[in-house]
Formats: sequence, structure tokens, C-alpha cells
Amino acid sequence: MAKQTSEAFPMNGGNGPYSYAHNSTYQKEGVDSTKAKIQAAIAEKLDIKHLPSSLKTFTIADLGCSFGPNTFIAVQNIIEAVVLKYKSQGTFSSDVPEFQVLFNDHSSNDFNKLFESLSPEMPYYVVGVPGSFHGRLFPKASVHFVHSSYALHWISRVPPQVVDKSSPAWNQGRVHYASAPNEVLEAYSAQFSKDIQSFLDARAQEMVSGGLMTIIIPALPNETPVSQSTFGAVMDLLGSCFLDMAKMGLMSEDKVDSFNLPLYATSPKELEALIERNGCFSVEGMEALNRPMTHDAAYNAKLCLSHMRATLEGPIREHFGTEIIDELFHRFAEKSAMSSIFINSDGWAIDLLVILKRN
Amino acid sequence: MAKQTSEAFPMNGGNGPYSYAHNSTYQKEGVDSTKAKIQAAIAEKLDIKHLPSSLKTFTIADLGCSFGPNTFIAVQNIIEAVVLKYKSQGTFSSDVPEFQVLFNDHSSNDFNKLFESLSPEMPYYVVGVPGSFHGRLFPKASVHFVHSSYALHWISRVPPQVVDKSSPAWNQGRVHYASAPNEVLEAYSAQFSKDIQSFLDARAQEMVSGGLMTIIIPALPNETPVSQSTFGAVMDLLGSCFLDMAKMGLMSEDKVDSFNLPLYATSPKELEALIERNGCFSVEGMEALNRPMTHDAAYNAKLCLSHMRATLEGPIREHFGTEIIDELFHRFAEKSAMSSIFINSDGWAIDLLVILKRN
Repeated sequence: MAKQTSEAFPMNGGNGPYSYAHNSTYQKEGVDSTKAKIQAAIAEKLDIKHLPSSLKTFTIADLGCSFGPNTFIAVQNIIEAVVLKYKSQGTFSSDVPEFQVLFNDHSSNDFNKLFESLSPEMPYYVVGVPGSFHGRLFPKASVHFVHSSYALHWISRVPPQVVDKSSPAWNQGRVHYASAPNEVLEAYSAQFSKDIQSFLDARAQEMVSGGLMTIIIPALPNETPVSQSTFGAVMDLLGSCFLDMAKMGLMSEDKVDSFNLPLYATSPKELEALIERNGCFSVEGMEALNRPMTHDAAYNAKLCLSHMRATLEGPIREHFGTEIIDELFHRFAEKSAMSSIFINSDGWAIDLLVILKRN
Repeated sequence: MAKQTSEAFPMNGGNGPYSYAHNSTYQKEGVDSTKAKIQAAIAEKLDIKHLPSSLKTFTIADLGCSFGPNTFIAVQNIIEAVVLKYKSQGTFSSDVPEFQVLFNDHSSNDFNKLFESLSPEMPYYVVGVPGSFHGRLFPKASVHFVHSSYALHWISRVPPQVVDKSSPAWNQGRVHYASAPNEVLEAYSAQFSKDIQSFLDARAQEMVSGGLMTIIIPALPNETPVSQSTFGAVMDLLGSCFLDMAKMGLMSEDKVDSFNLPLYATSPKELEALIERNGCFSVEGMEALNRPMTHDAAYNAKLCLSHMRATLEGPIREHFGTEIIDELFHRFAEKSAMSSIFINSDGWAIDLLVILKRN
């Protein structure tokens, strides 16, 4: 229990200019546009008559919460909607259960910062739960609502084949599967599939029957090959910065060959198939959210840069050391500014909102 | 809920030579000597037949857990005893509930360190709960066992009268109530009484009926005035170091006058009366534990110094700044070595083990 075997890639901590807390505007806009949809899902799909009438505590888990302000906003939305749902069914205010919120992230997440930013006014009991959400985190049948936002696209580890020189999936000269041979994509896809299965298996045990789960995950539209996506183009751009630096002798080519970003962009079709294969959840909704991208390419590039740095700096620093970080992202910024990939206001992927119910 | 209004005095963080984690030998020996007694209390007093037979999760709270290794040892003892109790009543291993442990401390506690030191082998689900245990931390009737070790002698705030120049309880020239006029002692005692009431009120709501609570708290034997106790002598010794430094101009006298240590040594009689006044708990046991003190005065003095520094450095640094810390404890060490107060192997207080049951 409370296994922490998965690799942890914490977001940038603290309050500095590149911290996740200061660079998660992108996610925040996603959370806001999702608010109404999640509230509607709770109003329509949450079956509170199915819960024991003696229920004293309604338990909500936020998986991969990080430590920025977004996690509190999302949880607040969910609680408001659950309270409304109770009241709409004739429950007196005094009989609405108390709320307990389980904030989960890797044990290397900055929980101190998360806890220090709590307000005493929060109308729920706060709990921090360290550990990988690819394994069990909570006791059996103890959770009523699970929320996970911008977290499940992180795979639990880089597939070992892609750094194995003797494997056909060896990903030489690249840091991602975008533009890589098919074997590399397949290795990433297999890892994602395994991760989703272990995620759903664990949640199936932890959630009560009838419990709801909302997942927000960046994805590619169906039938869009990664090599033709803006997401892929951004990954290639970042990869080319690594290669430039290797050519200049600022890092070794071996070091680049042995590094791969643990990010995977699924598609609605792929994700739905994985959920069906698991069999413990029904898909109550799956739709693309509106992206807060603009037609201003320079703005989009800047947003992308700050987001990439806040989220990717951790794994990059761990592999290459701190010295190369500024230079790398400086190069990425320069290449981004000259690139045409941010002109397209469709953004570089879709954000999928998935609503699941525990059978 | 999750109020964090009390003052927080976290133990020294990190892994350095003065960290709480490296200087809690004293507490650890207390925990070990208590092991058998707590296990006996669980065997004799825990009424598992009173719990619902469908209970899936047995919930244990460790209040004021800090982040050292002791907290895990104490919890492990409790779980082993509860499992034994279940088995002794004929419960099959597979029907013993899962365990969830709520590690609580102030939100300024080093939860990151606590979480990083978790082992994946721990046979329970881990949860961190930030906030003052003088208020509500958990939902109603959600906790089966509460443990609190060496935490309740910290009062939630210094009584305001003792820093009020116009009050008869103004504690001029001292940093503690030891050797102070009676008004100062009374102000401390009233604060402790208020704290115990709010502690018990909160636990009464959070614990299930029949739930057990074990408290370990340093105290003075009945009828022992603080001014005649070794505890008082140690506090006076520390106070004299502050005054020496003020006289040398290393800090202002005003600064010393406005500082008071938020520590209170109760007595078995006083504590029992407070528990009875609260009325929600029956006292199932109250006894002094064997102290791990030796006849080696130099050893005792050293142990006391490292313990004092690990636990008191936080509030002292907050008031006086970091600069004075080394000098202060250097002086304290020198005075300790010359003092006769550590010759007495009875130690400077007793450790009370209190066993309570929620009515």
C-alpha cells in the first residue's frame, strides 16, 4: 500500500518566476471552462440516493494535485455542485455530509507549500496523500468522487526499450516519440495503456459503487498522427534544441539519447477503449474542452514556453543537471519565436474531459 | 474546519545536527518503554465488538506527529496490537480491516520530509493532515484511535497577560513561569486548561464511540511546585542565559520580556480533573512511564541540551532571529555542565501515559 514505485516528476516548486504555481494560467483557464460541465455532470449523474443515508463524510480525491491554486478552485466547484445536488433532492443543509478532500501527488511534490497556502475558511477537511496514483492510495470503497486534471498524460516511467541500444525501439537522437519510428510510439503507447489500467484498477477498489470520476487530459483528436500535430511539432522543436547543444559540446549525444520525456498524448478513441477494457467504469461523458488559445502566435509561443518550462524542467534537470536549463529554454524561446507552429489557434492538442462512473 | 489559528512551533526540520529527527532519542526511548503498555491497553480496552462488523478501514490519528522516525514506530505498535486483538476475537486475517493513518501536525511542519521518509512496505495508507489539534481536523465520528506523544505540553499560544506590561501577570525578566509570581503560573495554567478542553471537544466529535486515545505528556508529579522541579530549574537556567546575553547587549531586555516559552508541565491530578470536566472520555489508565535517564550527569545534561535545542529553537529563532541561537545554546551547555541539576537520575519531570476511551 502507499506504493511509490513510479518515477516522480514534480512540477517546479516554490514561488519563483518559473514555478508551476506562477505558470499554470493555461491549466487554470481549462479548469474554469470546465466548471460548468463538471457541475452539470454532478447534477445529472451523481446518484446520491445510492449512497447510504447515514453518510457523514463525502470524500473527494484530487489526484496529481501539484501545489498551485488550481487544485483548490477545482475542488471548490465540485463541492458546490455536490451540495446543490443534495439540496435539490430535499436534503436539509444540516444533513448534507461534511467534506473531506484528499490531495494526492508524488511524495516529492511540495506538500509544505500546498498546506501553507490553505485558508482556514475552506469548508472541508484537508488531507495530503503522498504516492503514485498508478497504485493504491486509499482504503477500499472509501472515496466518493475522484478528480484528476492535467496529470494522466504523464506516464509512470519512460519505457525501457527506448533507451536500450539493442532494441528496435531505441530512440536515438530524439527526446520524445514525435517523429520517431513506429516502435518508439508503440513503446510509449504500451506504457500509457499499462498506466491507465493500473490507475483504473486502483480507483475501482477505492471508489464506492456509483462514485463519479472526472479526468481532464490533453490529447490528440482521433486519427491525428503525432507527427502531424502541433504537440508533436513542439516536442520536435524542444528535441532540436537538445541536439544543437550536443553538437556545440554543451552536452554529450549519449546523454541526449538516454533521455526521453515521459509525456504521452492519447486520443479519445484510444482512451475509451482502455476504459472499456478495464470494465469497472462506464463512460458518462467524453468531450473536448474549449482551449484558451488565441490567434496571437507570439502570445501562444510565450504561454507554451512558460508552461513547458514549469512542467518539464524537473525531469530535464534530473537527467542533465541544472546548468543547461536556462540555455535550453532560451534556445527553445528563440526557435519558438521564429516558428510558424503557434500561428494555428487550434492549439497543440485538445483537452479531453472524461466523466466516468464506478459500476 | 481545518482551522490553523493556533501558533505553530515546528520542530527543527531537515537532517542537520540539531534537527528534531536526529535529536529525538529521548522521545524514542519513551516510545519504546510505552510499547508494551499501549499494546496491553488495546488488548484489554479496545472494544472491537462495538465497531460495525462491516468496518473496512480502521483509522488511527497521530496528533503532533512531527517528522522523525518515532511517529512510525508508535503507529506500527498500535496497528500490531489492533490486529492481534481482532485475531484474538476469532477474526480471519482477510477480514481484519485495512488501516489508514492520519499524520497530523501544524501546516508549518516539514510534511515533505515526513512523506519522503515513508517506506513502501508500510502496511497502511498514509495521510498527512495539516492544522492545529486544538481545533477540528477530521470529519465527525471518523477516527477509531488517537495517539499523541510529547505534543500536548505545547500550549497553543503564550497567554497575552504575561507580555502585557499593565497586567499583574507580566513576566518581566523571565522566559517561563518557573520561578515567576503566581499570576504568571495561573495564566499558563488557564491557557493549558483551555487548550485541553478544545482538544478534547474536537476529538469527542471526531472519534467513534468506544474509540481509544493514548496520550504521552511530560508532567510534574502531584504536589510538586514547578519552582522545586528539575523542569523548572532547567527553564530557569535557560532564562538566565537570555538575561546574560541581554546584559552584554547581545539582545534587548524588552526582547526578553516579550518572549515566553509556550510549554506547560501539568500534573496527573490537574489533567484528570480537566478530562473529567470535559465529560466525553473515561480515564482507562494514567501512569508515569520509566524515564530513560542515567546517573551520568554529563550525559543527562547533553541529552537535555540536544533535546531542548531541537524542540525550542523554532520559537526562539522566530522571536530573536537566527544570529543568537548558537551563542544561546553554547551558554546553556556551559551552565548545564557546571550545574548540579542533572545529577538526580529521576529526571526533570515524569512522562505520563494517559489512556482514554470515548464514551
